Amino acid sequence: MTIFTEHFLMRDLHQSGDKIVLLVMDGLGGLPLTAEGKTELESANTPNLDRMAAEGCVGLSTPVRPGIEPGSGPAHLSLFSYDPVKYEIGRGVLEAMGIGFELTKNDLAARGNFATAAPDGTITDRRAGRISTDECIRISAKLQAATGNALPGYEVFVKPVQEHRFVLVIRGEGLGGELTETDPGVTGKAPLPVQDVSNTAVGAHTAQLVNRWVEVARAAIQDEAKANTVNLRGLAKDPGLPHFPDIYGMKAAAIAVYPMYKGVARLVGMDVITFSGDRPQHEIDALEQAWSAYDFFFIHVKKTDSYGEDGNFDAKVHEIEAVDAIMPRILALKPGCVIVTGDHSTPAKLRSHSWHPVPTLLWSPRAMPDTVQSFGERACAAGHLGVFHATNLLPQAMAHAGRLKRFGA
Amino acid sequence: MTIFTEHFLMRDLHQSGDKIVLLVMDGLGGLPLTAEGKTELESANTPNLDRMAAEGCVGLSTPVRPGIEPGSGPAHLSLFSYDPVKYEIGRGVLEAMGIGFELTKNDLAARGNFATAAPDGTITDRRAGRISTDECIRISAKLQAATGNALPGYEVFVKPVQEHRFVLVIRGEGLGGELTETDPGVTGKAPLPVQDVSNTAVGAHTAQLVNRWVEVARAAIQDEAKANTVNLRGLAKDPGLPHFPDIYGMKAAAIAVYPMYKGVARLVGMDVITFSGDRPQHEIDALEQAWSAYDFFFIHVKKTDSYGEDGNFDAKVHEIEAVDAIMPRILALKPGCVIVTGDHSTPAKLRSHSWHPVPTLLWSPRAMPDTVQSFGERACAAGHLGVFHATNLLPQAMAHAGRLKRFGA
Repeated sequence: MTIFTEHFLMRDLHQSGDKIVLLVMDGLGGLPLTAEGKTELESANTPNLDRMAAEGCVGLSTPVRPGIEPGSGPAHLSLFSYDPVKYEIGRGVLEAMGIGFELTKNDLAARGNFATAAPDGTITDRRAGRISTDECIRISAKLQAATGNALPGYEVFVKPVQEHRFVLVIRGEGLGGELTETDPGVTGKAPLPVQDVSNTAVGAHTAQLVNRWVEVARAAIQDEAKANTVNLRGLAKDPGLPHFPDIYGMKAAAIAVYPMYKGVARLVGMDVITFSGDRPQHEIDALEQAWSAYDFFFIHVKKTDSYGEDGNFDAKVHEIEAVDAIMPRILALKPGCVIVTGDHSTPAKLRSHSWHPVPTLLWSPRAMPDTVQSFGERACAAGHLGVFHATNLLPQAMAHAGRLKRFGA
Repeated sequence: MTIFTEHFLMRDLHQSGDKIVLLVMDGLGGLPLTAEGKTELESANTPNLDRMAAEGCVGLSTPVRPGIEPGSGPAHLSLFSYDPVKYEIGRGVLEAMGIGFELTKNDLAARGNFATAAPDGTITDRRAGRISTDECIRISAKLQAATGNALPGYEVFVKPVQEHRFVLVIRGEGLGGELTETDPGVTGKAPLPVQDVSNTAVGAHTAQLVNRWVEVARAAIQDEAKANTVNLRGLAKDPGLPHFPDIYGMKAAAIAVYPMYKGVARLVGMDVITFSGDRPQHEIDALEQAWSAYDFFFIHVKKTDSYGEDGNFDAKVHEIEAVDAIMPRILALKPGCVIVTGDHSTPAKLRSHSWHPVPTLLWSPRAMPDTVQSFGERACAAGHLGVFHATNLLPQAMAHAGRLKRFGA
């Protein structure tokens, strides 16, 4: 895999220094509900974040490209300084990483969805009525038993994720190509066959194998009440990204509740910390526990995005306030640099991810304080960081933590 | 021709959505005449644009690269999201496009200037006293008659543009190279021969052909009072740009008065709308007429630039006010996104194009309103769009018009 200029610079210049915390509130950026109104972040009572904005500097982050509404995977890669336009990574790989499945270089991974099909084969529910995770575990085991030896010469793994989602991994020599998904994207249509669009022999062979697996899998669960068929998406192999600890010279830990974000972190070589609880304060418990063992900490808060997707403006506001409340515990650990940002915007007004640039705060004893005294979308437009690409954050954090040598004499 | 990353993204992600209007006031950016003064845009009374700035977001656009003063062709390509440093296009091609000449892939086009030469061959007037367009038509016809068959195996077209300007097209197999111009750039010097700097056989052959044409052409008009010689500039072939409608999935219409801007629009695959009148309100008549038939509209207002070039500060102010007056008619059509910007700055103070970044306004019901309440150079410096490259505008407009799918899962 190609290493890009920016990573070469970091690899050449890094040195030991202070610790860095990257706190990501998923979907942080918002919009006012009315023309005169405030955004979620502007509405939240955030005395700690406001003080950090006053002491540090702020700006607006562009996750992928101006105007591009990113998915969570690409958006996080960008925050980790891997331009997701240059480094393409399939959802199947992210999903497998997310459940802690350790992919080998011979593995092809897919995100699987249980779905409901009518007798004529058309999809009536693309999420199988969001079956319980227990059901997901039961039916995944059934599929493992029925399909584990269905592809001679290949190992097959079917692993439950949650609700209607599972992971399929096919392991063996000679897998590859560029594979299309089976999900028609809407109900009322039949699933599609997997096709290879790379027009390679490897791709054609792989598509054939996957279609064979789908056939056996569907036959095995056709009597299920809801989850009587499967769809596969994001079929891909681990692209072998250059590892974060090698690029930055930092031992890196990820503190996240949801599988997806653990997956992206593992993909770039971070260790995933296990802990109990699922609230921001539990994540800070984990941070305090792991503090001495790592140089870099990625903390992921999911609910800001979930509430944005639900259109629940007030709940998003409260979740931001819950994060504000734990900031003193982070600062008490004496980090050299704390970044608070989002992977993308999820305005409650739009009930969706969006392309709007993301309010971002960089706090450090070495920061140049700008004139901004609060943390919010409009405040950040006037900040010292300007409007910048998310991949530029890590190098800035490195500098503020005293972790970069001079470039040139 | 290479397709660049950003265009791939747009091609992959576009979907149907709301309509987009890109209104370009040529040379919009200005400078104060005195240290305490206001710019042309800041001086203009623009209640409608100010309201749109308050509801939308603003920023400063860099047309080509920081510090680069662009010509109109490259500046417009940039607004259409074709980086003019990557996509080089000869002025001859733009000029031919501008008069509606449909270039084939075997055509070499040049911008021709009639000029006045002294008996010793040195140029005394590079624009032949700006002869009338009628004279241009007469002498172009004379040249067509005299040179149409002067190059065995090749077709020659001489087409009038206006005043001292004409277009030369040579059509046939095996034309190419990188050709220098004949215009010495100053009076008191003799014209230069066309040279090929690509050092290719095709280029050498083409230079020889063009020089032969120049020789025959000069002989044919040597008795004219003013237009007694010719110069050729910007010799080039159509680079075959990827087409705007393919990249963006939008049927695109151009509404412009001057040939040059119609030419750039045609070059990227926009339809050029014909209409009567030459004032901004006539362009909006045309917009209303064409509204249902297109997804994207480029509207070009020329006089802001012309008055800037004339050093006529007040006339530029009034032209900006005339554009302000038509904004309600655009909004009444319910577009999903309106961008108001310039292709570059033309401060009356400098009587010339300049490199200063261009005030830009993005209005949309989906915009994040920033704190800026008026439309002007200094107001835009505090806006949510930041200082950005002009090629980023179209993707932003696409997002705000709901025309982009999510990138990645």
